[in-house]
Amino acid sequence: MIIDCHGHYTTAPAAHTAWREAQQAAFEEGRRPPPYPRISDDEIRETVEGGQLRLMDARGVDLTVFSPRASAMGHHFGDERVSAKWARACNDLVARVVGLYPDRFAGVCQLPQSPGVPIARSVAELRRCVLELGFVGCVLNPDPSGGHWTSAPLTDPSWFPFYEAVVELDVPAMVHVSAVTNPNFHATGSHYLNADTTAFMQLLQADLFTTFPALRLIIPHGGGAVPFHWGRFRGLADMLGRPPLAESLLRNVFFDTCVYHQPGIDLLFEVIGVDNLLFGSEMIGAVRGVDPTTGHHFDDTRRYVDALALPPGDREKVYALNARRVFPRLTV
Amino acid sequence: MIIDCHGHYTTAPAAHTAWREAQQAAFEEGRRPPPYPRISDDEIRETVEGGQLRLMDARGVDLTVFSPRASAMGHHFGDERVSAKWARACNDLVARVVGLYPDRFAGVCQLPQSPGVPIARSVAELRRCVLELGFVGCVLNPDPSGGHWTSAPLTDPSWFPFYEAVVELDVPAMVHVSAVTNPNFHATGSHYLNADTTAFMQLLQADLFTTFPALRLIIPHGGGAVPFHWGRFRGLADMLGRPPLAESLLRNVFFDTCVYHQPGIDLLFEVIGVDNLLFGSEMIGAVRGVDPTTGHHFDDTRRYVDALALPPGDREKVYALNARRVFPRLTV
Repeated sequence: MIIDCHGHYTTAPAAHTAWREAQQAAFEEGRRPPPYPRISDDEIRETVEGGQLRLMDARGVDLTVFSPRASAMGHHFGDERVSAKWARACNDLVARVVGLYPDRFAGVCQLPQSPGVPIARSVAELRRCVLELGFVGCVLNPDPSGGHWTSAPLTDPSWFPFYEAVVELDVPAMVHVSAVTNPNFHATGSHYLNADTTAFMQLLQADLFTTFPALRLIIPHGGGAVPFHWGRFRGLADMLGRPPLAESLLRNVFFDTCVYHQPGIDLLFEVIGVDNLLFGSEMIGAVRGVDPTTGHHFDDTRRYVDALALPPGDREKVYALNARRVFPRLTV
Repeated sequence: MIIDCHGHYTTAPAAHTAWREAQQAAFEEGRRPPPYPRISDDEIRETVEGGQLRLMDARGVDLTVFSPRASAMGHHFGDERVSAKWARACNDLVARVVGLYPDRFAGVCQLPQSPGVPIARSVAELRRCVLELGFVGCVLNPDPSGGHWTSAPLTDPSWFPFYEAVVELDVPAMVHVSAVTNPNFHATGSHYLNADTTAFMQLLQADLFTTFPALRLIIPHGGGAVPFHWGRFRGLADMLGRPPLAESLLRNVFFDTCVYHQPGIDLLFEVIGVDNLLFGSEMIGAVRGVDPTTGHHFDDTRRYVDALALPPGDREKVYALNARRVFPRLTV
């Protein structure tokens, strides 16, 4: 059994994406958005059978933990009402994919975050997705401003109502930003990785997990720069008078394996260890091409994990057992 | 011969730091700053002989390429005039260290950058430092706003007057941010690494080095997240229709070895290769403690490089030969 903890519905039907554009145009012109389009089951089937499902089959991945397209969450755009409608539309669409292929996908929801709006107002949609749609987790954007970082750090009490809800619902949150509006940053090339590093350092600096010992956060893209600079972070924890990282963070923080070359995966496993790693590929996502040096897709991360010499049982942890522990609502 | 390409004068005399505080207070109160204090040679000797020189001797480092304290550059503070005076004071102090120990330190200057002020206005101080003080390089802050990223990306023509000057003077620039004013970021824990990743991705996206084939940029802290995610960056280059990284960037971009654990250094050498690596420690800098797992300082990066099995001649490139190529004004 192989569970991919990090897949996005990047191939959503054109009508869905067109509706978002219409919603944005309507907001800018002060009009009401058009009604959400009818999308048939066949249209949905087409978008995943030629895409994610085909690649999952080719790569031997059984189940993908599936969320709306991250770069399209666009929490910075519009206002709370715009985000609420868009999040609901995206989550309902993911629920339909899960409904069509319940043994191949599990749902993870986008939150209706909006800059300056208290996170408590995202809890209703989280509850709806978990309790009514059967979702197993959520994506938390640490920077709904789209690169301006106007929210407080993740360890600030302003985020606590959200942590209370995910702990009560027993679902993890993947900490994942969306699009960026500042031309200094490239969404998937720097903003995503920077946000991963930023979130980890915020968690290192404070005592969030003594307040929420059952909170589980996944930092995607292999933890950004963190495993590569693990010595730096261990040294900073020491300088700041914080406990060792294994104690203060590694009971609650997990990394995925979205690192697209063998040396990166080698380091990730060497430094972080198998108990805190969840198999992930971000497929179909940030990097879609074939690596000329291997002849395989960059994001075919199973090949890198398979190539590791691991003690018996370790691969199973990363491929499925850790995911079941972190996402206990997974039932497949 | 071992050259450390990345050392900061973090132990500057208290009177120097106190003057900066007085300068800042004066600016805020609309007064003229007090005169810069007299600092004796003995005071300077004391700050380096008990600090950088002692550690260089203990670690077998012959020469440090030495710049003012990065986090204290504080380009976001005040205005152009404040930055000009402070940069000059910092650079003059570094020049005095170099003057006292000309075989142990080579100077690298801070620029008088200020948000919104054209970089061309930093060229005079660059020229003064190189031509009058004998400095061998400079530190370029890609975000003088202190974390707001209000400048254009490094590939924008607004930076070109600076590139013209460094090419003419035949000195490299280390791309290094300073303090950050947004509480989401920790200066040395996330802002520095994020800036490294951001700068690399900017360079990947455009054609800067076809315009400036002789421009040499050093991205510190082992390149931020870049080597760990080298497959991602190779894949993004491919998706964006850019040439392979080795062609488009590795003739002009260099990384230092400021990565504070063995697995990180192992990956850096495996992925980037010795021709683009310059030995560096950032000592005395971001991480000052002793790693309890090794019993040695985290930032004693020579130990990690010495532990690598390298073909004959490769270590010499990283320890000295590359530095001489990148900093041709080095004469020691």
